[in-house]
Amino acid sequence: MLNWLRHYRRDQLAGDLGAGVVVAMMLIPQGMAYALVAGLPPVLGLYASILPAVLYALVGTSMTQSVGPMVIVSLMTASALTPLAEPGSGLYMVLAGQLSLLVGAVLLACGLLRVGFLSGFFSRPVMSGFTIGAALLIAWGQLGTLAGGNLRAPHTLSIVLGGACMLALLAARRYLPRVWASLAPMAVVLASLLATMAMGLGQQGVATIGEVPGGLPGLNLATSQAHWEPLLKPALLIAFIVFLVSMSSAQTLALKRGERIDSNRELAGLGLANIGSALSGAFPVTGSISRSAVNFAAGAQTPLATVVTAVLMCLALVAPTGWLSLLPLPALAATIIVAVLGMLEWDTLRTAWRYDRSDALALVATAAGVIGLGVEAGVVVGVALSIGTMIWRASRPHIAVLGRIGTSEHFRNIERFPSAETVPNVLILRIDANLFFANVDAVHARIEEELAQRPDVRHLVLMLASVSAIDTTGLFALGEWNDELQRRNVTLHFAEVKGPVMDRLRDSDLLQRMQGRVFLSTAIAAEQLA
Amino acid sequence: MLNWLRHYRRDQLAGDLGAGVVVAMMLIPQGMAYALVAGLPPVLGLYASILPAVLYALVGTSMTQSVGPMVIVSLMTASALTPLAEPGSGLYMVLAGQLSLLVGAVLLACGLLRVGFLSGFFSRPVMSGFTIGAALLIAWGQLGTLAGGNLRAPHTLSIVLGGACMLALLAARRYLPRVWASLAPMAVVLASLLATMAMGLGQQGVATIGEVPGGLPGLNLATSQAHWEPLLKPALLIAFIVFLVSMSSAQTLALKRGERIDSNRELAGLGLANIGSALSGAFPVTGSISRSAVNFAAGAQTPLATVVTAVLMCLALVAPTGWLSLLPLPALAATIIVAVLGMLEWDTLRTAWRYDRSDALALVATAAGVIGLGVEAGVVVGVALSIGTMIWRASRPHIAVLGRIGTSEHFRNIERFPSAETVPNVLILRIDANLFFANVDAVHARIEEELAQRPDVRHLVLMLASVSAIDTTGLFALGEWNDELQRRNVTLHFAEVKGPVMDRLRDSDLLQRMQGRVFLSTAIAAEQLA
Repeated sequence: MLNWLRHYRRDQLAGDLGAGVVVAMMLIPQGMAYALVAGLPPVLGLYASILPAVLYALVGTSMTQSVGPMVIVSLMTASALTPLAEPGSGLYMVLAGQLSLLVGAVLLACGLLRVGFLSGFFSRPVMSGFTIGAALLIAWGQLGTLAGGNLRAPHTLSIVLGGACMLALLAARRYLPRVWASLAPMAVVLASLLATMAMGLGQQGVATIGEVPGGLPGLNLATSQAHWEPLLKPALLIAFIVFLVSMSSAQTLALKRGERIDSNRELAGLGLANIGSALSGAFPVTGSISRSAVNFAAGAQTPLATVVTAVLMCLALVAPTGWLSLLPLPALAATIIVAVLGMLEWDTLRTAWRYDRSDALALVATAAGVIGLGVEAGVVVGVALSIGTMIWRASRPHIAVLGRIGTSEHFRNIERFPSAETVPNVLILRIDANLFFANVDAVHARIEEELAQRPDVRHLVLMLASVSAIDTTGLFALGEWNDELQRRNVTLHFAEVKGPVMDRLRDSDLLQRMQGRVFLSTAIAAEQLA
Repeated sequence: MLNWLRHYRRDQLAGDLGAGVVVAMMLIPQGMAYALVAGLPPVLGLYASILPAVLYALVGTSMTQSVGPMVIVSLMTASALTPLAEPGSGLYMVLAGQLSLLVGAVLLACGLLRVGFLSGFFSRPVMSGFTIGAALLIAWGQLGTLAGGNLRAPHTLSIVLGGACMLALLAARRYLPRVWASLAPMAVVLASLLATMAMGLGQQGVATIGEVPGGLPGLNLATSQAHWEPLLKPALLIAFIVFLVSMSSAQTLALKRGERIDSNRELAGLGLANIGSALSGAFPVTGSISRSAVNFAAGAQTPLATVVTAVLMCLALVAPTGWLSLLPLPALAATIIVAVLGMLEWDTLRTAWRYDRSDALALVATAAGVIGLGVEAGVVVGVALSIGTMIWRASRPHIAVLGRIGTSEHFRNIERFPSAETVPNVLILRIDANLFFANVDAVHARIEEELAQRPDVRHLVLMLASVSAIDTTGLFALGEWNDELQRRNVTLHFAEVKGPVMDRLRDSDLLQRMQGRVFLSTAIAAEQLA
């Protein structure tokens, strides 16, 4: 813990200071905007950027991660809270903190239980589909704000202002380097604020964010006894997405410098961050991909950059905040829309479509699930599709009938090598998958199919060079196949069993129970059984 | 469809007739008992044994499957309906049929969508734990009936009667061959019925099943509009268990004769059977392991045996049924308890404990889940544990650093072969698992770990002889590793890529993007990169 601080080198300071300033400039408008997405007062987005970031810096393993508000997590927060309380109400704010507390507790518990492998429940195409669906949902929601509150009765001045902001932001993203582009939202927000003041846009019907209370967040311990249970399921789903989003961000950046990320430490760090957010009276937070990338690009070397950002956020809060009240909502909506449009990356879909159609379909189905059923159901759809694809693939193991090439010792798939000849009375099957509960039935079906075509076969040799593991279900299946094949006068043998698999099989009685043998190579098996 | 009928041979008839009679004798007490477990009038158990069995025979692929009431499915039915209606009420009966209709529709849809791979969601240890948990729950529930209705105020005569029946049944199972033992429940029930009549046990407080209406079931189309939605989730869980139980039974028996089971046809057959049960006004049914084994052992050759059983059940219903009303409930409870005690098989737990501790823990946790949280939650716990174990295992792929044995062309794991020597500047990693979303992070972590220990390495060779598939997530990961390693002056190469994997990689731009090469063998890679 705090390894980076113990080994801090003086030459890292300039990078950390610079990045800390850049990210703070980026975070002030972003935090306020993402609090609005969560249905909360903008100032809570600033609260969510201080303690959580510092707590993450204590425990997390990423050097450049920026933990704080993130737009998809804010959408999930709104989706979780809206059925339970009126947005803007006191209860809604209490529940936001309570949700963050639950999310933090779940993440911390997962970290202590060392279940960091949970990130393996979402495939990359599914994550891409989830992000695309959520981004479209958010953009759609913000279009209303940009149009002055109601898409059916748009307010022209709001649209002009929001549209101008969008164009400026898109141009900045298109033409400026990443670090400069990250300052564009602040510039746009300030410009629109000045325009509002100068031209009195507020009196002409452009909505503004209203009073932003100054001062640091107080300690929040408010919870609603009746809402622990209804908040639990959303908290589990949000914790899962918080972890996935943050890991994806941390790993992408760590890869660039050959740093290592420990998923269990990340869980603990994100858990503390969310508990910190709850104590600040804010809402669920995570590591943000876009902000962390800016932090990295602006030269951050260690989490000190994040601490610098947090200090600057505190300064912003203790400075006079009254002038912020005229900040026009359409400008903030424009920053959100441009940010989420940046999440619509089609490369995964394009690649998956060419490379693996089922992955592409999982992507599209997840996006459709998010848009059609909502962001929470979308997580469930995504997990189901990831796992479903995995089980479906597992249920179709590649199995080859092997034949000898000429008089050599080489045995190859007879479908790929038509010159390969099978050995009379012997069926040699190479199983190209670990044998486990999701594929034993398929392997068995294939064995019976091949045996039915070759009624003369007296010896079945399973070539296991590609089998790295056999689970208990597979072990039972092998025992049962052995007994039943024996009853039909077919003897089961193994060939080329890997060392670790053999070690495990010796812990069972399968090898004693088998009438057949374990051959070192396919060639020896063929020679001795022919 | 009906393939067995088209190719029916005369010599199969004797076996089918005999087995049909034996199973009918077994089914009459069993059907009534399992209807009671479901909280329904005993006669519905007989209704559930006719049309469902015949419909299954039309479509199913097992030659010896006996489809009808099954005790675990009855428990799940009671668990699904009890929160929605008072057992014994008219609504409860309507909902039982409606549940069966939903279960049937789900199964039929799964069959038409060809998702027979769904059985891969439960590992064998988890299925064993589920069965043990359900069996204990059922036995516990029936102990009350055996004690005269209330365990706290037991009725001596009921206990004596039930206890005697239990002893007789246990003795029959212990000392008689399976086919004869299967007739023991009928004998015990008849004997207890005679005893009740002769000694007037009914007047002395022994509960009896009461009037059993005669005649065949009428067509039932009753449903409750308000209950479709609350019944959907239980129907999905029951459909899943119906399929698993039936497949396990069908496959065990098919294995003994080298017959083949088509899981999608099984889904369709079970779907029709449950719809048939709904139309008969009964409750969810499945293929029963114990009854099918008796059918098989009694000589059934084709589904004609099942049709014979169904005809006999019809005869039993049109014959006078008044005398059945004095059948004592403790005797039926005894048949249920002895039947479920037979499901407590500890062999899977024993084997798993020695062979794979995590599978043993999954078994115990599933059993505990069923007992502690109920049978529906138990299914969810079981699926989560099966999938969780799978993802957890996938997240720990076996990866070996390879070294050359002497001056040979053989490369082996340097941990297993201490004489193997690594090639200077070259790191050769053999990946013993398919590369996919659940393990790319683990593979990457291992690569970074090995590179960190060997700062001189300029070439990383991934030896892919055991990799049979790479999904889209794996494809992206390889591309990213390539780019980032290149930035750090390490070139990524592949060796021994399997044919099907190479075919797929050619559909992507990975190979063009790589600076490294694809070597036919590890030896060639080592030679050319050294």
